[in-house]
Amino acid sequence: MGKILRINLSSRKVQEESLKEDFLKVFVGSIGIGGKILYDEVPPWAGAFDSANRLIFSTGPVTGSITQTAGRHTVLTKSPLTGCFGDASAGGFWGAELKFAGYDAIVFSGRAEKPVWIWINDNHVEIKDASPYWGKDARECDRALVKDLGDKRVQVCCIGQAGENWVRYSAVMHDDAGRAAARCGVGAVMGFMNLKAIAVRGSKKVPVKDEEELSKLMREIMLHYKNSDFVRRFHRGGTPSSYATVMLIGDSPTYNFAGEEFGEFDESRIKKLAWPGGYELILEKTNTCYVCTIACRRVSKQGEGKYKLIEGSVEGVEYENMSMLGSNCGIDDIYAVNLMNDLCNRYGLDTISTGSVMAFAMECYERGIIDKKDTDGLDLRFGNADAAIELIHKIARREGFGNLLAEGTRRASRIIGKGAEKYAMQVKGLEIPAHDPRAFQGGGPHYACCPEGADHMEGLSLGIEAFGLTFKELGIQGSYNRFDTYGKAELAKKMEDWWNFVNSMGWCLFSAFRYGDVTRFVMAYNSVTGLNIDLKEALKIGERLYNLKRAFNYKHSVRREEDTLPERLLKEPNKRAENSVVKLEITLPQYYKIRGWDENTGAPTKEKLVELGLEEIAKDLFK
Amino acid sequence: MGKILRINLSSRKVQEESLKEDFLKVFVGSIGIGGKILYDEVPPWAGAFDSANRLIFSTGPVTGSITQTAGRHTVLTKSPLTGCFGDASAGGFWGAELKFAGYDAIVFSGRAEKPVWIWINDNHVEIKDASPYWGKDARECDRALVKDLGDKRVQVCCIGQAGENWVRYSAVMHDDAGRAAARCGVGAVMGFMNLKAIAVRGSKKVPVKDEEELSKLMREIMLHYKNSDFVRRFHRGGTPSSYATVMLIGDSPTYNFAGEEFGEFDESRIKKLAWPGGYELILEKTNTCYVCTIACRRVSKQGEGKYKLIEGSVEGVEYENMSMLGSNCGIDDIYAVNLMNDLCNRYGLDTISTGSVMAFAMECYERGIIDKKDTDGLDLRFGNADAAIELIHKIARREGFGNLLAEGTRRASRIIGKGAEKYAMQVKGLEIPAHDPRAFQGGGPHYACCPEGADHMEGLSLGIEAFGLTFKELGIQGSYNRFDTYGKAELAKKMEDWWNFVNSMGWCLFSAFRYGDVTRFVMAYNSVTGLNIDLKEALKIGERLYNLKRAFNYKHSVRREEDTLPERLLKEPNKRAENSVVKLEITLPQYYKIRGWDENTGAPTKEKLVELGLEEIAKDLFK
Repeated sequence: MGKILRINLSSRKVQEESLKEDFLKVFVGSIGIGGKILYDEVPPWAGAFDSANRLIFSTGPVTGSITQTAGRHTVLTKSPLTGCFGDASAGGFWGAELKFAGYDAIVFSGRAEKPVWIWINDNHVEIKDASPYWGKDARECDRALVKDLGDKRVQVCCIGQAGENWVRYSAVMHDDAGRAAARCGVGAVMGFMNLKAIAVRGSKKVPVKDEEELSKLMREIMLHYKNSDFVRRFHRGGTPSSYATVMLIGDSPTYNFAGEEFGEFDESRIKKLAWPGGYELILEKTNTCYVCTIACRRVSKQGEGKYKLIEGSVEGVEYENMSMLGSNCGIDDIYAVNLMNDLCNRYGLDTISTGSVMAFAMECYERGIIDKKDTDGLDLRFGNADAAIELIHKIARREGFGNLLAEGTRRASRIIGKGAEKYAMQVKGLEIPAHDPRAFQGGGPHYACCPEGADHMEGLSLGIEAFGLTFKELGIQGSYNRFDTYGKAELAKKMEDWWNFVNSMGWCLFSAFRYGDVTRFVMAYNSVTGLNIDLKEALKIGERLYNLKRAFNYKHSVRREEDTLPERLLKEPNKRAENSVVKLEITLPQYYKIRGWDENTGAPTKEKLVELGLEEIAKDLFK
Repeated sequence: MGKILRINLSSRKVQEESLKEDFLKVFVGSIGIGGKILYDEVPPWAGAFDSANRLIFSTGPVTGSITQTAGRHTVLTKSPLTGCFGDASAGGFWGAELKFAGYDAIVFSGRAEKPVWIWINDNHVEIKDASPYWGKDARECDRALVKDLGDKRVQVCCIGQAGENWVRYSAVMHDDAGRAAARCGVGAVMGFMNLKAIAVRGSKKVPVKDEEELSKLMREIMLHYKNSDFVRRFHRGGTPSSYATVMLIGDSPTYNFAGEEFGEFDESRIKKLAWPGGYELILEKTNTCYVCTIACRRVSKQGEGKYKLIEGSVEGVEYENMSMLGSNCGIDDIYAVNLMNDLCNRYGLDTISTGSVMAFAMECYERGIIDKKDTDGLDLRFGNADAAIELIHKIARREGFGNLLAEGTRRASRIIGKGAEKYAMQVKGLEIPAHDPRAFQGGGPHYACCPEGADHMEGLSLGIEAFGLTFKELGIQGSYNRFDTYGKAELAKKMEDWWNFVNSMGWCLFSAFRYGDVTRFVMAYNSVTGLNIDLKEALKIGERLYNLKRAFNYKHSVRREEDTLPERLLKEPNKRAENSVVKLEITLPQYYKIRGWDENTGAPTKEKLVELGLEEIAKDLFK
């Protein structure tokens, strides 16, 4: 759309700003626009909870077009969990609606005196009093705003009580609190800014340079979808369809990544959660995001008994929730996991971090590092779903022990002390998601060096290493041994570069291996923008964005010593993954070399930045 | 006392910790103990408003002894204004009482779920519910706690509403809200931690190795005081007694350091505020801190008319308040300044930063950068005392435009934009106090490079440069030309090293040039500790502490580019100071060389750190 919106919550000033084409060609898409603004405008002396921080809602060039799965947007900020470059992306319909209103991004600065929400109706932008909505959960808030605005087409993103209370891993929720920009604590910054919600309605059309070409391409892709067994199964089972498979290869963590020491998760227990399996008990129907015929979203039934939801027909459990809130906490009751997931969505909590911080607390409890005096009487043994549910309430409300865990795994472990740090499964402060890098060596350097911390949305090589997925066009076709380090540093880099391109453009990563041929993404990008880049250039864009984030981190005093993993992953064999550990001592130096990063500082070298067209950043970073 | 108290507000755990003698010999005094803990325990990824930050109340070895002026303590934290090493020290009686209770320091970590206060009665330590005190101003809170505890000897430090609202330049108030640890926003961190107050009562005696020797020395010093015209005048006039003198040489700022462009501050206007002069209208009597016969504290009358205080007989106006809230805002009404000062004390606001941020806003208003729409209708012309008083209320309560200014001058100027940054009179985010370095060149490198930002409590060379004060024992005896740069870098360093020793030991800086002979400090230190150091070693301790702070800053990504001054001081001549500007381009490189700091990064070199006995820090910083 060529325009962004700047909203200063301290001075209540709203301004439109045009983006120049030259700028957009270098800083492409949601991460490009948002990342450059973050780099330029957030000084190292600013904390995350700071009027000098920024909260950016950003879209890509394809977001809101008719391109398949192009419904995504990204929320960027200096993260209150990591102090690093933070971003989180989400599907749903909100990003597309922002484009329809005429904006590529919104940049928030300052901090409102009292809770506010923003109403964007095309170019009518208003800062409004949020007192009627403050204190509501994300779903209640979303519905109340849609109702009060009297237009069902309004798209809302908002925080729940967790964000209001600055729980450091709060999410920004969208689409009836069904979709979440969850990671890096973006919702906590929204809460700090006293910003409850952004409601958007637009009537514009997203410009596409060659509509005919794009339509033709989309017909091809939809035909591919129709004929693909993989896509058909994914439509039927959603992300839960992968659960049993990855559990069996030791990729999905159990018991805070400690595994068998605390219990077996055998096939019968896996079956209680998996699809096909126990998951079918809670599955009502499927759902979709903006322009997506894969339609991997699930809708959950209300159910019955003690784990009954507040109301039914709400967003279903995803793979990450099932694993992090379920088996990683030793819980195998699908009804309980369904409720836990729904509570996280309502409160606006990142389910990955929430599951991790609870599993961490459970391990501390099992090991006697903490006891009932610390947990307000909760019997925090692994597998105690009732205690876990109570704990989610306490975290979101910052009550008692929940106030401590609301700080995230890294901070909580330091507060508890007594060696608890060892059981904090996090990298740079971001909790590790439900993919154990002991099960695929490419995950090691990726998690260790990812600017956001351990983030599986930035370039996961699991499918390639464990399931023989190939990307011929990217030069990824060999058969990899997932326990071998050979070629893994390079593989991690390639996936990161590629996924950063895909993410930043506004596509869903699930489409990233389901368009059939990755060059189709580049063709779609060209059709939308009228440019004529090739795959090599697309990868270079991805690499540029990744290095932009790394440059931000270096500027904000993140050093090489933070490029590591919890000791457990480096030393304790994963029994379900052939007793493997992450061989980071081998892959990390290789990765640094391939990335062109300084081995001593961890910063991108001046040469690398210049090569990627980031001369200005290089000048700033090494002045 | 050899013991510190650790209070984790998240887990509500209280622990005693012993300090080893080896440790105390290297990390001497309040800045040594607090600084080392801050360096070791606050990671660069932690913001100021962060459960991973620390808030440390720390004393020196002489605090609470019979040594003259030894009533001071220091509050340390990662500063919410600067993101740098932050500290503020205060007089009164609280620091001595903490020693009597048996502790050298208290280290707070984490964040309480709900407002709490701490009750320390010798080794009985309790975390208590602060809801009855939350919302009270600092004086009300102090008095209510003393009353509720039923013991008039209880000493209280607490925050007012400004700290509760995280105004970034909130102070920690002591002694009936009469004394303030004001700078660097230490009170905002206390507010963030939900910590309203610390009440202390102790019955122990501070150990002194050679009481006889110390008593003898004190008799000498008191005789010196008795015979010193300087001390006698200082007792009679307090800090306001210097106001007229330093105004006339252009040291005291007017109109946000812009001076004559906005109005003359001639002798008749100076006289309206000064002592002798207008000040006498509000002066009720004098007062003192713990064991101090100088007794420079003032008590103010309630007065009459529209600038009447809430109640009389409260802490009087100091030089810094008179200048920063008065002439720097173009205000020459002593009753108004008296009320502004009292409001700041009650709300718990740093008067220096408050005066600066208001003067900044006034200049923006005068220049048309902001108007009444921005200021909630306030007519913010220079000199409008009514508007300034209203603004103090708004800042402390974070109402409207006050919410913006509550962020401090640096952040406020960035939020306002439109070139406002130029008028933000701050260094590293800390507002410049009422000593204009254009009036004495030694102030240039000092303000520019001081780890805390522009802090006149870290080594001010004004007296030496402008008034011929000498410290023969420190090798400072030449007659300096205050407008010349010759020898000023070295002078700044010497004063910083010396003052850091004096500050850290627990002495008041006013005694630092009033003991008559500086070796007396070293003798007193030796008598108290039983050690036998000489002046050279004392200076080395000061240098070590200063470099420890600098090392913290480097670790937290503060770089050489921040070692500068606002353009105004470098380019706009100060008419009242013979049209001088700060010649930083000359003194800064000299200063770096003398300090042994890296010219490119601004960090202390490895060699310098090792030379100062900070091998461990060197290893950590350059790993």
